[in-house]
Amino acid sequence: MAMTGILRPGHVQIRVLDMDESLNHYIESMGLIEVDRDDQGRVYLRCWDEHDKFSLVLEPSDRAGINHMAFKVAAESDLEHYEAKVKAYGIETKRVPAGELNGCGERLSFVTPGGHTLELYAQKDQPGNSLPTLNPAPWPRDLKGMAPIRFDHCLLYGDKHDETIDFMIKALDFQLTEQLVDGDTQLTAFLTCSTKAHDIAFIRNEEPGKLHHVSFLLGSWEKVLRAADIISMDKIKLDVGPTRHGLTRGMTIYYYDPSGNRNEVFAEDSYVYPDSPVLTWTVDNIGQAIFYHSRQLVDSFTQIST
Amino acid sequence: MAMTGILRPGHVQIRVLDMDESLNHYIESMGLIEVDRDDQGRVYLRCWDEHDKFSLVLEPSDRAGINHMAFKVAAESDLEHYEAKVKAYGIETKRVPAGELNGCGERLSFVTPGGHTLELYAQKDQPGNSLPTLNPAPWPRDLKGMAPIRFDHCLLYGDKHDETIDFMIKALDFQLTEQLVDGDTQLTAFLTCSTKAHDIAFIRNEEPGKLHHVSFLLGSWEKVLRAADIISMDKIKLDVGPTRHGLTRGMTIYYYDPSGNRNEVFAEDSYVYPDSPVLTWTVDNIGQAIFYHSRQLVDSFTQIST
Amino acid sequence: MAMTGILRPGHVQIRVLDMDESLNHYIESMGLIEVDRDDQGRVYLRCWDEHDKFSLVLEPSDRAGINHMAFKVAAESDLEHYEAKVKAYGIETKRVPAGELNGCGERLSFVTPGGHTLELYAQKDQPGNSLPTLNPAPWPRDLKGMAPIRFDHCLLYGDKHDETIDFMIKALDFQLTEQLVDGDTQLTAFLTCSTKAHDIAFIRNEEPGKLHHVSFLLGSWEKVLRAADIISMDKIKLDVGPTRHGLTRGMTIYYYDPSGNRNEVFAEDSYVYPDSPVLTWTVDNIGQAIFYHSRQLVDSFTQIST
Amino acid sequence: MAMTGILRPGHVQIRVLDMDESLNHYIESMGLIEVDRDDQGRVYLRCWDEHDKFSLVLEPSDRAGINHMAFKVAAESDLEHYEAKVKAYGIETKRVPAGELNGCGERLSFVTPGGHTLELYAQKDQPGNSLPTLNPAPWPRDLKGMAPIRFDHCLLYGDKHDETIDFMIKALDFQLTEQLVDGDTQLTAFLTCSTKAHDIAFIRNEEPGKLHHVSFLLGSWEKVLRAADIISMDKIKLDVGPTRHGLTRGMTIYYYDPSGNRNEVFAEDSYVYPDSPVLTWTVDNIGQAIFYHSRQLVDSFTQIST
Repeated sequence: MAMTGILRPGHVQIRVLDMDESLNHYIESMGLIEVDRDDQGRVYLRCWDEHDKFSLVLEPSDRAGINHMAFKVAAESDLEHYEAKVKAYGIETKRVPAGELNGCGERLSFVTPGGHTLELYAQKDQPGNSLPTLNPAPWPRDLKGMAPIRFDHCLLYGDKHDETIDFMIKALDFQLTEQLVDGDTQLTAFLTCSTKAHDIAFIRNEEPGKLHHVSFLLGSWEKVLRAADIISMDKIKLDVGPTRHGLTRGMTIYYYDPSGNRNEVFAEDSYVYPDSPVLTWTVDNIGQAIFYHSRQLVDSFTQIST
Repeated sequence: MAMTGILRPGHVQIRVLDMDESLNHYIESMGLIEVDRDDQGRVYLRCWDEHDKFSLVLEPSDRAGINHMAFKVAAESDLEHYEAKVKAYGIETKRVPAGELNGCGERLSFVTPGGHTLELYAQKDQPGNSLPTLNPAPWPRDLKGMAPIRFDHCLLYGDKHDETIDFMIKALDFQLTEQLVDGDTQLTAFLTCSTKAHDIAFIRNEEPGKLHHVSFLLGSWEKVLRAADIISMDKIKLDVGPTRHGLTRGMTIYYYDPSGNRNEVFAEDSYVYPDSPVLTWTVDNIGQAIFYHSRQLVDSFTQIST
Repeated sequence: MAMTGILRPGHVQIRVLDMDESLNHYIESMGLIEVDRDDQGRVYLRCWDEHDKFSLVLEPSDRAGINHMAFKVAAESDLEHYEAKVKAYGIETKRVPAGELNGCGERLSFVTPGGHTLELYAQKDQPGNSLPTLNPAPWPRDLKGMAPIRFDHCLLYGDKHDETIDFMIKALDFQLTEQLVDGDTQLTAFLTCSTKAHDIAFIRNEEPGKLHHVSFLLGSWEKVLRAADIISMDKIKLDVGPTRHGLTRGMTIYYYDPSGNRNEVFAEDSYVYPDSPVLTWTVDNIGQAIFYHSRQLVDSFTQIST
Repeated sequence: MAMTGILRPGHVQIRVLDMDESLNHYIESMGLIEVDRDDQGRVYLRCWDEHDKFSLVLEPSDRAGINHMAFKVAAESDLEHYEAKVKAYGIETKRVPAGELNGCGERLSFVTPGGHTLELYAQKDQPGNSLPTLNPAPWPRDLKGMAPIRFDHCLLYGDKHDETIDFMIKALDFQLTEQLVDGDTQLTAFLTCSTKAHDIAFIRNEEPGKLHHVSFLLGSWEKVLRAADIISMDKIKLDVGPTRHGLTRGMTIYYYDPSGNRNEVFAEDSYVYPDSPVLTWTVDNIGQAIFYHSRQLVDSFTQIST
């Protein structure tokens, strides 16, 4: 098959300040499903249409932010393949033993030039999504809240932006799909390992290792409205939206979890292939590139990261 | 990148009886864009969000049906790679010279056990979709009719079904995503070379080489309604819909072009990866598998092919 | 205010064969809310966005069908006003005492020429919809099933069609909005007492007093899809849809309750005023008038009534 | 019929600075249809689903703002009826002769306590909407831009707010549907003459006679997105949205015409009857009342009027 190597964002582990508040947010308001807890106090969740055991790990902490983002690879041999490529690129790797996260196999871990820990793994338990594999309904009853389909991507703020993008493309085989540029300077890069407009994205920043947002996929613009209504009903702090991005055409809304980590839920109709042209937005259109309708940046959106 | 080898359905060449009527159908009602004609009288069209020169070729003929379906591969070397694999599987191949279709490079051509001509090509002109690559709007103004995003897949009726599916998977690296089975007999197979629920699908049939439908992607269920309205306004012969499929969850409508070739326009929110479980529908649920709402087969849908 | 006299469909009392099955249908699948029961075994329900106590009364019986449809009038004096008009038209009236239906005031009752019992009432308890009147959210959480906004209208099959329509217009001040005609013969009449395309509708029939369907309003075409999915999940007998009507432009789906009474849920964007032109469909377009997409009648839809 | 007296907003005449720019805005971007011009240089437009000749009159001027808003009444006798009521209320009236606006009958004109000229008329030419009355399609082809269904309402800023609301209710029979209050002070009043959440609305203001916005109805939230996209494509100045209002639940977007007059396009699923409870928002929830998602006022929205 045409899909090999790094397949998809598999999970993100983020730090949260108050676990009960966080679970209320991610379960009652967002509609993720709790699947496990471990002796470090971490709680494992997944979206309703994910077959893998978990896609979001909440880690109790005294500061918000991202611990690591992990990608599923197609085979165990891919771990060795990318271990060699990452090392050859000049970046150290380590192996995290199977079972360190419940139900997840051994992980290859490394830190990007921009200071983010990325991980690859080949195995994770697949208890199945919330539907049977035999004669499945199109969606399960009894979903709560926004009920996104899946964890979709992260947007990360880091320094050494150019080195990071070069690393993602050369060592990890990601593809640049869209970008925002200021002359020769790339401000934002959207990268895919599949046919999505982005599986991960990076923004040039002075400080390394920051999280801009964790994003989850919805099935339609009407579900974005429903999410927006829930945000208000549940007194969740809104950042921006509902609106559309120029970059990726995504129909989106941004808000914060109780720890201050930014979330996005969005719908989309764009797609890319390896031979798709890179779409470029220029800084004179930065407002439209980010928020297509208002054509104006929002301070909180550009300045807050965790 | 993770996408290699066979990337996507690149085009389908179908036979039409009356070119003027056909162009009226595909351009005025469906909203495809004419891009070229050749000295065989063939007319080339594309959807608005396709970067490649064409995705649909209408061939003047005295009988409806499919000439061939072609897939874009990532590199010229893939042609040799799959040429060897197809031959090794025991199926003859031939090369169709570059330029036989305007703007398309050399094609590798072969016939499946079920009697369908499939082709692979590595090069096609990319004049771009209907938007600039610099600061593109989310959609172009002045679209006509249904205005699908892209040519999406074909469903083919053929004999030697099991041999065909085996060939598609072993020689061409397709992945089985969903199926309808009657005990040990597979009636329908949905295959992907990407993350779509289907890039091509096959139905077990007594006669080889038949076309069930050519399918185009829409962005939402509301656009399926709009397509349905246009079908009625333009007196297009409806087959079935609007409705949803159990298989693939697609939100769909079927109708016929003036030559009797069945078309589909549909929206979807499903996705697959190489490690996704195969979803299986059983023949006792065949109605729901095909038409999720009515749970009843429609004679025309199952019996008519071209 | 401009709205006086007969305001809206207030409730319909229908006969059901098995109350438990019926409640499962109307509550779990359709999402209506049970509000009361009485010593006749009747169960009272309402939709989530209705302020009045109830809009649907299920009456235990050994045959399906409609007992009566009732309209809310603006004032007690309207009861006397219409009592006089109905009598002057030559039709007998009676008064049903307050409290015969729990929470409903005195009703004026009469039988149309086509054999349907219609009633008017000026008072019904208003416990409020499922939202507060102070700072209300746009919709309540914890809705079940299809969750229609309100009971919207009934379509009735009766004999003496022309007499019935004349009576509705002359004695009850209804307005003809749309019709289907065969030459000089009106086959179907849509009537409003407000700005809706129909508050009640009649179809010419040989037999008097039959119910074609009870209809409930949804907020969008996407919610019609959701209803269609639920119909299949819950193994509810589908009649027709999802589709659009030519008449009224409604986006609709029809199905049967466990007793065989037909239900509709639909969305719409049409409206009328007293000076709106009557829209007329001709019998040569009957298919399109009824089912805009397929342009074909469906036997069950035209032949089954209760 | 239940609808009598004042039926609906019939048209609004607003002042524009540059007619060509204004027509480009209202015709090319918004999709209204030009129907006439007069010797005062006024241009008459209507929305595609309006049967009356016009609903928007653009008046060339050197300052933006509203000239008058006019309501259609059911009968000529209503003019006399309301003439008497308005005079009895202590407000002067005048008659504007038939033909002063092309195709419009005699108008009854008066000024509210808050300084807005309102008018009533009983006759306007009805060339019909953009569809036939015989076998009409659900929508016309070849619509441009946002393509709203109809002119829906105006929101007006005026002084003597309480007097104005009292006048609208007592002299003109409007009904209060929703309000925003600060203790005993009503800040905003939504008024209907039909079953809409608002046919006109007023905001308490120091200055009389100002226009907040002219509003047009769309059929769905997806069409609000489409309007938002067009606003950006056409470089129209956005005010706020897409979002939802708490008041009326409307799904909305605001922007400015080239003269600075604010426009709204919106979709809705709410409705009222004469016996509907008044929905009240309190000033401590003013953010949520106005912009349900962000729960924050927007300076331009509250401060700019014309």
